Amino acid sequence: MTEEQPEKDVDGGVSRRDLIGLALGASATSLVVGAGAGLVGGAAYGQTQARQAMDAVASASGIHQPGITTPVQEHLHFAAYDMMARTTREDLASLLSDWTYAATRMMQGLEVSATGAVGGSPEAPPDDTGEALGLPASNLTITFGFGPSLFDDRFGLAAQRPAGLERLPAFLGDDLDPERSDGDLCIQACADDPQVAVHAIRNLSRIAFGRASIRWSQLGFGRTSKTTADQSTPRNLFGFKDGTANILADDAAALDENVWVPASEGPAWLAGGSYLVARRIAMLIETWDRTRLAEQDRVVGRDKAQGAPLSGGDEFAAPDFTATDATGKPRIDARSHVRLAHPDMNNGIRILRRGYNFVDGTTDLGRLNAGLFFLSFQRSPDRFVTLQKSLANDAMGEYLKHVGSGLWAVPPAPQAGASIGAGLLGA
Amino acid sequence: MTEEQPEKDVDGGVSRRDLIGLALGASATSLVVGAGAGLVGGAAYGQTQARQAMDAVASASGIHQPGITTPVQEHLHFAAYDMMARTTREDLASLLSDWTYAATRMMQGLEVSATGAVGGSPEAPPDDTGEALGLPASNLTITFGFGPSLFDDRFGLAAQRPAGLERLPAFLGDDLDPERSDGDLCIQACADDPQVAVHAIRNLSRIAFGRASIRWSQLGFGRTSKTTADQSTPRNLFGFKDGTANILADDAAALDENVWVPASEGPAWLAGGSYLVARRIAMLIETWDRTRLAEQDRVVGRDKAQGAPLSGGDEFAAPDFTATDATGKPRIDARSHVRLAHPDMNNGIRILRRGYNFVDGTTDLGRLNAGLFFLSFQRSPDRFVTLQKSLANDAMGEYLKHVGSGLWAVPPAPQAGASIGAGLLGA
Repeated sequence: MTEEQPEKDVDGGVSRRDLIGLALGASATSLVVGAGAGLVGGAAYGQTQARQAMDAVASASGIHQPGITTPVQEHLHFAAYDMMARTTREDLASLLSDWTYAATRMMQGLEVSATGAVGGSPEAPPDDTGEALGLPASNLTITFGFGPSLFDDRFGLAAQRPAGLERLPAFLGDDLDPERSDGDLCIQACADDPQVAVHAIRNLSRIAFGRASIRWSQLGFGRTSKTTADQSTPRNLFGFKDGTANILADDAAALDENVWVPASEGPAWLAGGSYLVARRIAMLIETWDRTRLAEQDRVVGRDKAQGAPLSGGDEFAAPDFTATDATGKPRIDARSHVRLAHPDMNNGIRILRRGYNFVDGTTDLGRLNAGLFFLSFQRSPDRFVTLQKSLANDAMGEYLKHVGSGLWAVPPAPQAGASIGAGLLGA
Repeated sequence: MTEEQPEKDVDGGVSRRDLIGLALGASATSLVVGAGAGLVGGAAYGQTQARQAMDAVASASGIHQPGITTPVQEHLHFAAYDMMARTTREDLASLLSDWTYAATRMMQGLEVSATGAVGGSPEAPPDDTGEALGLPASNLTITFGFGPSLFDDRFGLAAQRPAGLERLPAFLGDDLDPERSDGDLCIQACADDPQVAVHAIRNLSRIAFGRASIRWSQLGFGRTSKTTADQSTPRNLFGFKDGTANILADDAAALDENVWVPASEGPAWLAGGSYLVARRIAMLIETWDRTRLAEQDRVVGRDKAQGAPLSGGDEFAAPDFTATDATGKPRIDARSHVRLAHPDMNNGIRILRRGYNFVDGTTDLGRLNAGLFFLSFQRSPDRFVTLQKSLANDAMGEYLKHVGSGLWAVPPAPQAGASIGAGLLGA
């Protein structure tokens, strides 16, 4: 078997360098175009839109990758990769360059290369695997992250490791599977069509051949967070609304305070980036389902019907942790999830949640192998650690098991013509 | 732990008996209503629509369950169940009665019972798990099947076993996992929202508590078959259009010939029903992706771009197996999938395919654990067996592995007020 790479021809007058860095900077806009639009028109459209988008998100904190403040899509395919043995810094740079090119194209609804699935030589394997042919871009976003292990002695990056980028500490109740945790690199692909998200991870994995391989991957559906004011709050697999108090994509002040790494804090290559935490949280579905409604409400601290805090008001009312009932007991239990996760209990810390439900069939015991694939973006890892430690007494912990975990630094979007991570690798 | 059962109250003037058998007979119509519509309005609407639907599908061959000729939805949750030890015929009858009631409601976008997720006593576990609250019915269909093992000596059904209802024979290349095969009962839940399909299987599993438990289950996405003239032909994970020549839902003659069990053939309880075959077919994705485009086309017998037969014409042109190229070689290879599966090579046999793609994360080798969850409905099991034997020489076999298998008899829809399988159980 020989290694095949996507072609990197000049595409109908639009050069590769023009494409790179455009779509990757176009978070939260409708950069994407229909797959049938044809390359030249598609790329030209994308170029204009992306320029506007970059202007829009080029705040003091930098230019951000898509898939963070992009309105959360319906489907996820997340993959963690390890660099293969004996790969070099040059291999890493070439991989990130090839990934940037392909990701930029796919987010515009294009195939991974100019020849794609059917336009190449019949005597060669196609560049693109083809299952997304004819499908719209479906709001695909592709977001790249760099794990702590990438900064060991293999690629000469140790000096550039952000101080906080290390494996998350063990938390009470962790039961982590190494085969569902960590990874040198990660890619979050989100789209409104699962086939489009799967196509992205599959083709990026293929492009990585000989340089990086998948360590683990996870599919998810039914977003569990509200990220724009006009999205209704979705329900998680406990049947409760989830993400009511999430940071909204247009709340620039909250994003700057809680999500983006300021130039003053991190290494220069990470300014305008973020930190991504992934946690595979198995839900003990059958146990939860046999719990009294009042107990479910107490554990969450909100009512199941409306998602309103038990202290009163509607879903969006601020919880009042001092409110008491006729017997003098707090209306919102001290160990409830909403209280322990609330910014008031955590020095004002908020995180941007972007998780998905997962159901991976059935366990050996005939129970649903299901739960929450928790994803959050935050300005520093210690903010997540603070929150997660605060949840050590969470009444919900009885119904959860954390079985996978990972932390990655998410660089800013590349400048036009550059590749993701260029600031880190100096390429 | 105590066993809880869904409430079976009279619901807002619409009795349980009115509901049962209505939605279950409403295949291929827009019976479903929004979840927020309220029970009385919803049920009344469903009742009218269902009556019309029953008239529409009450052909000579009977009244059919939904989810067979219903335009194929985007998402699947399929589950196989085994009856628990020491359960009785009465347990089976009560289970099917409870399942019918809940399924009928859910297909109308309602919760599993009148009190549902939030309307019951706070001191009791809710009847409904709640994660589909606020979601539309999403064209949910729920289809029930009875496996060969249900007709052993446990429930007194041996004399009513259809002659052909036995485990499928071993096929060349089978590598079946017993934990992904067979089952006393099966439920196919299809919907355009995965959360709705998952909610259905989860709640039906919960209702089964103490009587049946899940043996295995499978999620799927991105339908791989075209079932109505206005659906575009989707692509499978090999990147090829799949299901071009499928039987269409409005082709009553072809359905009668190939899908529905005629009264003359089966036991009376199965007249108007069908046989469902499920095969979990792992695709060797990475191997396929490294194959030359010309070889991929040859294996399939169609071109990847358009799905046109290699003998010429467009996607819907009939393949000409006698056409030769300039060198005298057949244009469509003798071992191609399209030829070996074609009715002309199989005594005119056609089956109704209704499969889905699946991606269950990644294998230990870092490869996508992906493939086709093949589902087909046919008038008799031997029709599938004939086709599958014909495929023993299929050139595509090199890239596939059948790892799961099951066969179930799919009874007709119940009469109004009766439960699924009433014809079998005499209940």
